[in-house]
Amino acid sequence: MDRLWGSAFDKKPKELAVLFAAGRDVKSLPAADEVLIPYEIKASKAWAKALFDQKIIDKDVLNKLLQGLDELQELYDKGEFKLDPLKEDVHTNVESFLTNKFGIDVAGKIHSGRSRSEQGVVDVLLYMKDFNEKLKTELKALIKTINKKSQQHKKVILPAYTHHQHATVTTFGNMLDSYGKALEKDLEKLNSWNELEEISPLGSAAAYGTTFPIDKNKINEYLGLKKVFKNEIQVMNCKGDAETLMVFNLAMLMNHLSSLAQTLIIFSTKEFGFVKISDEYSTGSSIMPQKKNPDPLEVMKAKASMCHGYLMSLLSMSKAPFIGYNRDSQWVKYIVMDAIQEVKLAPKIMKGVIETLEINKEMMQKQVESGFILAQGLMEALSMNKKIPMRQAKIAVEKTVKQSENNFELDVLNKNLNTQVTKQEFESWLNPETIAKKQMKK
Amino acid sequence: MDRLWGSAFDKKPKELAVLFAAGRDVKSLPAADEVLIPYEIKASKAWAKALFDQKIIDKDVLNKLLQGLDELQELYDKGEFKLDPLKEDVHTNVESFLTNKFGIDVAGKIHSGRSRSEQGVVDVLLYMKDFNEKLKTELKALIKTINKKSQQHKKVILPAYTHHQHATVTTFGNMLDSYGKALEKDLEKLNSWNELEEISPLGSAAAYGTTFPIDKNKINEYLGLKKVFKNEIQVMNCKGDAETLMVFNLAMLMNHLSSLAQTLIIFSTKEFGFVKISDEYSTGSSIMPQKKNPDPLEVMKAKASMCHGYLMSLLSMSKAPFIGYNRDSQWVKYIVMDAIQEVKLAPKIMKGVIETLEINKEMMQKQVESGFILAQGLMEALSMNKKIPMRQAKIAVEKTVKQSENNFELDVLNKNLNTQVTKQEFESWLNPETIAKKQMKK
Amino acid sequence: MDRLWGSAFDKKPKELAVLFAAGRDVKSLPAADEVLIPYEIKASKAWAKALFDQKIIDKDVLNKLLQGLDELQELYDKGEFKLDPLKEDVHTNVESFLTNKFGIDVAGKIHSGRSRSEQGVVDVLLYMKDFNEKLKTELKALIKTINKKSQQHKKVILPAYTHHQHATVTTFGNMLDSYGKALEKDLEKLNSWNELEEISPLGSAAAYGTTFPIDKNKINEYLGLKKVFKNEIQVMNCKGDAETLMVFNLAMLMNHLSSLAQTLIIFSTKEFGFVKISDEYSTGSSIMPQKKNPDPLEVMKAKASMCHGYLMSLLSMSKAPFIGYNRDSQWVKYIVMDAIQEVKLAPKIMKGVIETLEINKEMMQKQVESGFILAQGLMEALSMNKKIPMRQAKIAVEKTVKQSENNFELDVLNKNLNTQVTKQEFESWLNPETIAKKQMKK
Amino acid sequence: MDRLWGSAFDKKPKELAVLFAAGRDVKSLPAADEVLIPYEIKASKAWAKALFDQKIIDKDVLNKLLQGLDELQELYDKGEFKLDPLKEDVHTNVESFLTNKFGIDVAGKIHSGRSRSEQGVVDVLLYMKDFNEKLKTELKALIKTINKKSQQHKKVILPAYTHHQHATVTTFGNMLDSYGKALEKDLEKLNSWNELEEISPLGSAAAYGTTFPIDKNKINEYLGLKKVFKNEIQVMNCKGDAETLMVFNLAMLMNHLSSLAQTLIIFSTKEFGFVKISDEYSTGSSIMPQKKNPDPLEVMKAKASMCHGYLMSLLSMSKAPFIGYNRDSQWVKYIVMDAIQEVKLAPKIMKGVIETLEINKEMMQKQVESGFILAQGLMEALSMNKKIPMRQAKIAVEKTVKQSENNFELDVLNKNLNTQVTKQEFESWLNPETIAKKQMKK
Repeated sequence: MDRLWGSAFDKKPKELAVLFAAGRDVKSLPAADEVLIPYEIKASKAWAKALFDQKIIDKDVLNKLLQGLDELQELYDKGEFKLDPLKEDVHTNVESFLTNKFGIDVAGKIHSGRSRSEQGVVDVLLYMKDFNEKLKTELKALIKTINKKSQQHKKVILPAYTHHQHATVTTFGNMLDSYGKALEKDLEKLNSWNELEEISPLGSAAAYGTTFPIDKNKINEYLGLKKVFKNEIQVMNCKGDAETLMVFNLAMLMNHLSSLAQTLIIFSTKEFGFVKISDEYSTGSSIMPQKKNPDPLEVMKAKASMCHGYLMSLLSMSKAPFIGYNRDSQWVKYIVMDAIQEVKLAPKIMKGVIETLEINKEMMQKQVESGFILAQGLMEALSMNKKIPMRQAKIAVEKTVKQSENNFELDVLNKNLNTQVTKQEFESWLNPETIAKKQMKK
Repeated sequence: MDRLWGSAFDKKPKELAVLFAAGRDVKSLPAADEVLIPYEIKASKAWAKALFDQKIIDKDVLNKLLQGLDELQELYDKGEFKLDPLKEDVHTNVESFLTNKFGIDVAGKIHSGRSRSEQGVVDVLLYMKDFNEKLKTELKALIKTINKKSQQHKKVILPAYTHHQHATVTTFGNMLDSYGKALEKDLEKLNSWNELEEISPLGSAAAYGTTFPIDKNKINEYLGLKKVFKNEIQVMNCKGDAETLMVFNLAMLMNHLSSLAQTLIIFSTKEFGFVKISDEYSTGSSIMPQKKNPDPLEVMKAKASMCHGYLMSLLSMSKAPFIGYNRDSQWVKYIVMDAIQEVKLAPKIMKGVIETLEINKEMMQKQVESGFILAQGLMEALSMNKKIPMRQAKIAVEKTVKQSENNFELDVLNKNLNTQVTKQEFESWLNPETIAKKQMKK
Repeated sequence: MDRLWGSAFDKKPKELAVLFAAGRDVKSLPAADEVLIPYEIKASKAWAKALFDQKIIDKDVLNKLLQGLDELQELYDKGEFKLDPLKEDVHTNVESFLTNKFGIDVAGKIHSGRSRSEQGVVDVLLYMKDFNEKLKTELKALIKTINKKSQQHKKVILPAYTHHQHATVTTFGNMLDSYGKALEKDLEKLNSWNELEEISPLGSAAAYGTTFPIDKNKINEYLGLKKVFKNEIQVMNCKGDAETLMVFNLAMLMNHLSSLAQTLIIFSTKEFGFVKISDEYSTGSSIMPQKKNPDPLEVMKAKASMCHGYLMSLLSMSKAPFIGYNRDSQWVKYIVMDAIQEVKLAPKIMKGVIETLEINKEMMQKQVESGFILAQGLMEALSMNKKIPMRQAKIAVEKTVKQSENNFELDVLNKNLNTQVTKQEFESWLNPETIAKKQMKK
Repeated sequence: MDRLWGSAFDKKPKELAVLFAAGRDVKSLPAADEVLIPYEIKASKAWAKALFDQKIIDKDVLNKLLQGLDELQELYDKGEFKLDPLKEDVHTNVESFLTNKFGIDVAGKIHSGRSRSEQGVVDVLLYMKDFNEKLKTELKALIKTINKKSQQHKKVILPAYTHHQHATVTTFGNMLDSYGKALEKDLEKLNSWNELEEISPLGSAAAYGTTFPIDKNKINEYLGLKKVFKNEIQVMNCKGDAETLMVFNLAMLMNHLSSLAQTLIIFSTKEFGFVKISDEYSTGSSIMPQKKNPDPLEVMKAKASMCHGYLMSLLSMSKAPFIGYNRDSQWVKYIVMDAIQEVKLAPKIMKGVIETLEINKEMMQKQVESGFILAQGLMEALSMNKKIPMRQAKIAVEKTVKQSENNFELDVLNKNLNTQVTKQEFESWLNPETIAKKQMKK
């Protein structure tokens, strides 16, 4: 017995989808600095090389440090390097590893001109940069999937809603495409993060620089970030900026995904019946035998809200600090990590939902057949073809709606006009395919 | 080599203080449901007893279930029961444990009329209730410590600030006491949580109740919560209410603690020099040999901001849900747990800081000796003793301030008055002890 | 031409509903201190009386001050007293009014021992207290309306949803009632505000008290608040507490209202068709002639979000202030006022929506007739009547769902059981009225 | 009597600074749509021209509409056009103005193919764009002022702080410059807003486009925005995106300004005494005659918190909307307007504060003269000149700090070293000017 549900399912739920919906119920979070080990190694190598360039350490010391850091990376990759909590943080653990290996005469030099403050900043920055690239890749894959599905259903007539009410018609493909376009904007935002926040802090020390003749630009050649700080203290003045913009971008992305999720959730109710979310992306109930629930989509909404809160913590935390480093700013690390772990699977899960989504044309069509959903189209046709000012055409159609039963009736319409509409005009104007097509401009 | 600092310290930092300041750097977070195991056991026992009362299960089944749950508790206490992630959550894991032990003919009955939705709610509620009691105890201990320290320094003159500027005088004890009073308000809020949110959800099933003849009040007799839901669906309508009020209370508490922290941080600058934070509650730097930093106090500020964000996530998450249970609401659990783990040590750490705080009377005294810090007292004395309307007395004192060098001068004052102040009056009025005492009403 | 829509409406929209939906489009907000004039007058009277009690002013001065304040109240009531922006704030304006009238020898005494800091606190507190009482009244009226409507429809079968999917059945009355119960909790929270935050600040001066022999309890007898501060500085330590708890309560209330709103919005879609929101609480479109939109309900959601943000501003603002009054804390006033103006009409509008709501039983009934919505009931009946452990009963029903077309079929069910269900049992168990009734416990 | 304070001031406070600090006490907020009138006119002109291009209206109608809109602009500029609240919003008011003037046969055509939804979006977008340009100008002026002041004090030694404690030394100019660099980052963010969010919505109608043969790119030629929407529905999917990014940028800017403010507030305490904020940017107290308070700087902090909350409202509001326009999204307008009105004066005020700031070199110098503030410099000099691994040099200096009284002593240092430092070395290394200079890299 692994799950309390599932016998009513045709397909087994995807493990990733179940995991996504299960959140942190049965999942622990690693220590923050555990995650940063590879970035600490990378930054320490850059630092060691730069110390050598400035003749602060000699070739032999450099070689040992680089060799030691490589070895550490290997141990980490094999899962054999664990942080010792007594050694406070990743910086101390790594330096301590080197000290144990080479003695203080070698390892005691790597911290020359360096502070844990800037190390903390650079580790998280490298970690965020890595994540940002992965997220862009996942997001592009999702957009591609949306485009494909959108193309497949580009002519399927869908009721178009405003205020949750029938407004006009569009196509299912066009509806999906609109979310693809929103996500393209999010992709631009992810790119802007690199332009705005990818700034090397190395050389700023604890906030005010070091008297060692460090070359901040040279260090960054080894690191490969887009820019370098302009003033040492600026690094601490702007502590958390990169984290905050990243979480903002995640919040915007999750808001867009949550809107797509909500739309699909409502479309998949029995009452709408426009789409069926695959069993692979559904879960069951512990008490209701028939249930197939769109949990992964619901969870998108929770994750959007998580990002809202994380952003708030970041902003509140960075309000009105006194000049220089302050320990509270350390908390930005945990926040951005929490935000990333909440968001990282979201595009892939949404991609799976879209790929496996079944569309029910008949249910959509049924909704278009009765009621006054084509009223805007009718009004505009009247205005265009009969030269009736739009405002008057609207009033005429409004009255017709009021006086009709359940569908537009030509004679009622004509009673509300000074001109007469023919049966042929009437029918050609009230064609959902034509209206939908005309509304979608290239 | 455990830490990169410390040789300048007189006393070793307290482990708890270092841990508090180190945050999640080297600390992982357990799976949420791991923490809930004892509460799941407690709630399951109550449920089993209630099923028996309603004759839904017989005595033999009840006994087995209770015995199984007791055994599970023992295993958990010994650290021998771990959640299997494949079994989705704590509810499935516990039921599965019973099934493995007694077979489905026994264990398959415990979920009669029950849903994981209500189990999730009750587990977190019991967990929060436990925490709330512990927090009250810690908070009372902190208030007691503040009262004691306050009493010790009740006559030590302290410059009193508004806008960070000298405003008047007070005493160090009175300043500390004011924070004790703020914390007493927070304690009242913690109590109000029990009154407002301690509501048993058991019997509400997945949101709409069960056809089993469950007696919700009877179940709660076994659970021991203050109230019982009034309408089954209300439980889901109000999902997250208890978590949100708790996090709100934590945010208020942390805001008060962060104000006390900020005041002590500024008082402990070299420039103020009013207090010295004990080495036991300080940390050092990886680069600056002389540093003793008030990290535990700075971290209070970060933790306040964390609570702000957690509260925002909770509120955003609970906006406009459609009727009934929705999966996104599950995330309230992780938020309240994260908030609790951030806050739980704060009162104890603040207690330690206060207990070990050294006060420097001389530095405070020095600040009172020059400048115009006694202006309000002088103005009020003029008004009281010379029957000068307060508004006129203020203008006279303002002019005196403007025309004097660095201290009040009697002749300058008298030039600005229609009446004459004697030297004796002048000196008796400009007495900080008298002013401070008069300002503090019982 | 007043509106760009409306010819399709049967009833004219209520002015209040249109106003509610129109937000601040054509509505300006008054200066904050304009709103506080009556409270400033009330607090100044209390202060003057207390000065007299302590013999700080004499009877004649008291009488003049009271008379002047009464006159000011009359002018204000007639709309003839406007704030002069050059006089900074309401406190200065009121004092200035008295000075112009009686001269500085009289009016210059009212500020004896008093600071604008505490005046600001007390004015807003009195304003909030007033609002809180009004809100309770409105909320009680809304609850009463919900109870009445709920009673009327207590037997109307409604599909019951979890995850937006058919879960089981309930009644329309029960669904509505559940929101009434959530609102009763909000009402308790409004009451707790008085218990926790109704604290007189008068006598605390600018944060550290006054040397005038003010009797803080006596002043409060004239003010009539529940409690009095315990330590002068506490008033400033806790500046914003009362505002923050109030906005928190409003956020919780609006979240509950937004959930009711969202449920009604979805129920009123053409696809669900369960309810019709009255034209009186709908608005139209500038471009779509047929539209009747549930704007007042949508706006409930916006207003919930507004409260979230206001609360965040309050919390962020009150983080880590240095001891004593700081000017930034002044902003709490604008926030609570903005929050109140957003929320104040919400209960009345919701009351109107509920009163005029039309229920469509047939559409609800139709949803219950097909599909597997009664699966929980069937499973529980099997378990109760056939002594099948719940877990096994669930699997049997799950398989039956999977193997059936569109409704439960007896022979399919029996194939999945070791026992046999008779046609009579089957039909009696699959009765929505019975299931709904059994699920609702007293 | 205009203010209750001021007789102790040497210079009269700037009106703008008093206004800034007085917030909304005596300031009302205009109706949102009042502010949008010029943008509505601009967008309506673009629309009319585009209708003519597509032959939807003829030349005569176009001319009348343009003439009418020009006339309206003139009336508005003269303060003679006021919104009629009965006409719901700015869109209806403007159309109604044209209707009254030209009759429905002319004015009734301007809304052809257009919806208030897109009008609302474009009006706010144009308003934000205008503000963004003004803000950039103000921000550049502030940065220029900072650069100038920074240049003037580039060699003034300032204690450098981390954790509010003496860390090392820097210069006052360098400290100020670091804030200039932070603000340059904010300026880049303001520019990124244009790149990311300046997207014309016109042609999207109520969310799904219009059947009129509108050319969205042509309309935008008249509007002059950077981009045009790609999919009609995207406009509503992304409703609020531009507002949210703008408020995010404001929050980041205000956080940076609040940090500068906090640093200056602490530097201007009597205890620090490093700077004096000009009377022109100070305010007084109603009760304390000597007070000169840095209100405008304190208010920067409040305004940062306001932005945090506004951002939260925006994010919460935009979570999980169903496809298409929803009325709640209308509230984004009020939020961005409120945020803008809070922030708009901030850079100008900060510029004034910086320009008039007096620097007290002696007080800064005094702090550097005693204590161990040069420890990092000493340690690094030891490491560089004596080839002592940094980690060992640090321990040696730490011990020296512990064993010394109040300043570094050479003999104590030498006792902690294996090598010997000469008096000349010792003195040359402990030179604050040299240390500060070496720490600041180009």
